[in-house]
Amino acid sequence: MGLHDTGLTRQHCLEMDARDPLAQYRQEFDLPAGTIYLDGNSLGALPHRVVARMSTAITEEWGKGLIRSWNDADWYLAPQRAGAAIARLIGAEADEVIACDSTSVNLYKVLIAGLRMRPGRRVVISELGNFPTDVYVSARVAEMQGVELRCVAPDAVLAAIAEAGDDFALVHLTQVNYKTGLVHDMAAITKAAHAAGGLAIWDLAHSAGTLQVDLNGCGVDFAVGCGYKYLNGGPGAPAFVFAARRHHADIYQPIAGWHGHAKPFGFGHDYQPDPGIARMLVGTASQLGVIALESALSVFDGVDMGQLRAKGMALGDLFIALVDQELSGHGFGLASPRDGAQRGSQVSLTHPEGYAIMQAVIERGAVGDFRAPDILRFGFAGLYVTYADIWDAIAILRDVMDNRIWDAPNYKAVKAVT
Amino acid sequence: MGLHDTGLTRQHCLEMDARDPLAQYRQEFDLPAGTIYLDGNSLGALPHRVVARMSTAITEEWGKGLIRSWNDADWYLAPQRAGAAIARLIGAEADEVIACDSTSVNLYKVLIAGLRMRPGRRVVISELGNFPTDVYVSARVAEMQGVELRCVAPDAVLAAIAEAGDDFALVHLTQVNYKTGLVHDMAAITKAAHAAGGLAIWDLAHSAGTLQVDLNGCGVDFAVGCGYKYLNGGPGAPAFVFAARRHHADIYQPIAGWHGHAKPFGFGHDYQPDPGIARMLVGTASQLGVIALESALSVFDGVDMGQLRAKGMALGDLFIALVDQELSGHGFGLASPRDGAQRGSQVSLTHPEGYAIMQAVIERGAVGDFRAPDILRFGFAGLYVTYADIWDAIAILRDVMDNRIWDAPNYKAVKAVT
Repeated sequence: MGLHDTGLTRQHCLEMDARDPLAQYRQEFDLPAGTIYLDGNSLGALPHRVVARMSTAITEEWGKGLIRSWNDADWYLAPQRAGAAIARLIGAEADEVIACDSTSVNLYKVLIAGLRMRPGRRVVISELGNFPTDVYVSARVAEMQGVELRCVAPDAVLAAIAEAGDDFALVHLTQVNYKTGLVHDMAAITKAAHAAGGLAIWDLAHSAGTLQVDLNGCGVDFAVGCGYKYLNGGPGAPAFVFAARRHHADIYQPIAGWHGHAKPFGFGHDYQPDPGIARMLVGTASQLGVIALESALSVFDGVDMGQLRAKGMALGDLFIALVDQELSGHGFGLASPRDGAQRGSQVSLTHPEGYAIMQAVIERGAVGDFRAPDILRFGFAGLYVTYADIWDAIAILRDVMDNRIWDAPNYKAVKAVT
Repeated sequence: MGLHDTGLTRQHCLEMDARDPLAQYRQEFDLPAGTIYLDGNSLGALPHRVVARMSTAITEEWGKGLIRSWNDADWYLAPQRAGAAIARLIGAEADEVIACDSTSVNLYKVLIAGLRMRPGRRVVISELGNFPTDVYVSARVAEMQGVELRCVAPDAVLAAIAEAGDDFALVHLTQVNYKTGLVHDMAAITKAAHAAGGLAIWDLAHSAGTLQVDLNGCGVDFAVGCGYKYLNGGPGAPAFVFAARRHHADIYQPIAGWHGHAKPFGFGHDYQPDPGIARMLVGTASQLGVIALESALSVFDGVDMGQLRAKGMALGDLFIALVDQELSGHGFGLASPRDGAQRGSQVSLTHPEGYAIMQAVIERGAVGDFRAPDILRFGFAGLYVTYADIWDAIAILRDVMDNRIWDAPNYKAVKAVT
């Protein structure tokens, strides 16, 4: 027992599972025996139904239907259908979201569109610790468009908007920080952006499918997000893009591909953008990926996002309590907020030997991930993670620390990707 | 028999199949009984091996391996491996091609990169009849970059380059026209572009996997292409991009995503592009799609592209001879060159009732496609189309015409997508 013994036992965890209103959803997933999967914030687990759906899509629709399946198997509108399914999870209307391309490509589109809606304003604001691709994409857009990207500390965003004054064009942030799990105040920052005459763009990579996101309630202008994390769409699933309906007619899509055309199969010489969200499309959908995503999203049918958010917080609270109780004295720091309301569905610990520790933990069946330089990250996808999983993961972590299992060459050899 | 009776019979076609050095490859594909598939230039057929590969990828690698599969299943370098497999088919080196995004997105990248390599030059040249997305993407890039897109007739490209003089920045063309099948002279046009101080960009959508493309032999600067046509990568398969190695260090990637970074998992704040072809990447690969594409490309192992090109031409020659022999008097025009060397692996016919005719033909098991306003398009993927298929397709077409089967309301009702 550690220094902060709260008297928690595995039995308490099992009792929490017995009371969990979402417990039934775990059976929807094909989780391997012996694995405690706390990395759904990196790659969501496989829903059983996706296996059957993909088998049909490949052998019947592609194999037998061939080109006819664009019509006969309703392939063509799958990006719209997946978008509508995501919309319900993020507080948007069905015709404001579409699944396509990658998060980075979608961010590029909405940054360009947003800047063109605010001509003459030359300051873009983001966060120093934003996910790297958000900063890379934005910095290059700023360079090409002749505006300035200002990356500030997470608690300095509102001040930076105020300071930019009439130069303020737009702010773009990831709602939940990928390293720390810190949740930005979407409503307050969006309101401030509008008050300053600019726009707000949100990256929902770590919030869609796990937080109670309310894009329209917050008046958000544009958002992007990831299909392969909490939405369980599979490796490299199509991303999504949200554009508030009031902006649709004004969106200048920089990558003017045929699937964003009002009549893609009219094969006209001039680009006439689709009047709605489909103008965010570019080329042919990554169809196998969209089909998997659409199938995975149907698992969310009937899920109460308030319950899911509450469970994500409770799993995190339990994890932190058990870190205090079981792991004190081992040199871990807490990189995430203690307050569940300030924290996404993850808890990040710091440790100077974080990489080796995580490798040893993963090998023992508790799968989290490592983010340089010293972050051990554990994600809590409420549809399939149980309270007992948290206990068992902490037990493995304690064993790795108590017995210094991590201190072996095989765990310290850094691989290319983690 | 028609007016141009050449004495061809189905027996002649069977004899051609018996002599076909590529006949063995048909068994690699899961073609449905009763279907003659002449639309591999729109969506390639399903290779048997892809079914097993995808089953493993989904149930084992995603389902059981979960996030670990990025390392353990070698997911991470799949775009490079697929690129290397494509490189062999298009006359490029393995490290000059990578699979990613859509053709349209890739064209956007190389157009921006190319323009920045020729600063001050303000004329981009393309073809009036180029595939619409190529023109849409290019016109918008031109608008954003303050240059001029000049679309000219296919036989006026060389003159347009000469006319642009010192203003000439780059030419971009699709090697094989999607409607007519006309093949541009890649060597001559690329040479002229360089002589004028500019660059040449080629879209290989209808050539990769069926023509003997020789990008480096022609000195091409950049190329893009499609994974779901002759490469058989599946619906919406990742596209590819080629960049000549001599340009790698100078490529300004406008969509600066993390997978194009030299160290994507270093999570640094500043964008440092990969020194090689990987700088063309943006976000996480559409992994299910890349896996299917990589598997499909392995069917090409051992295929002699000279033989494949010769078969594509021979199938087209046979098709045209049979149109002459069997269909004269029915009002068809030939939209494709008669000379096989001038024609890609397709034959396009014109007919004022083309849409209804194609619907009736498809319903009888010969699958081609229709392109507005009046094009019936038949593609000949030499890996799985037989000479007897050509005979049988023409027989269906003749039946539809002789008996005026097309003249029924159900065939005339235009669907959203064809």
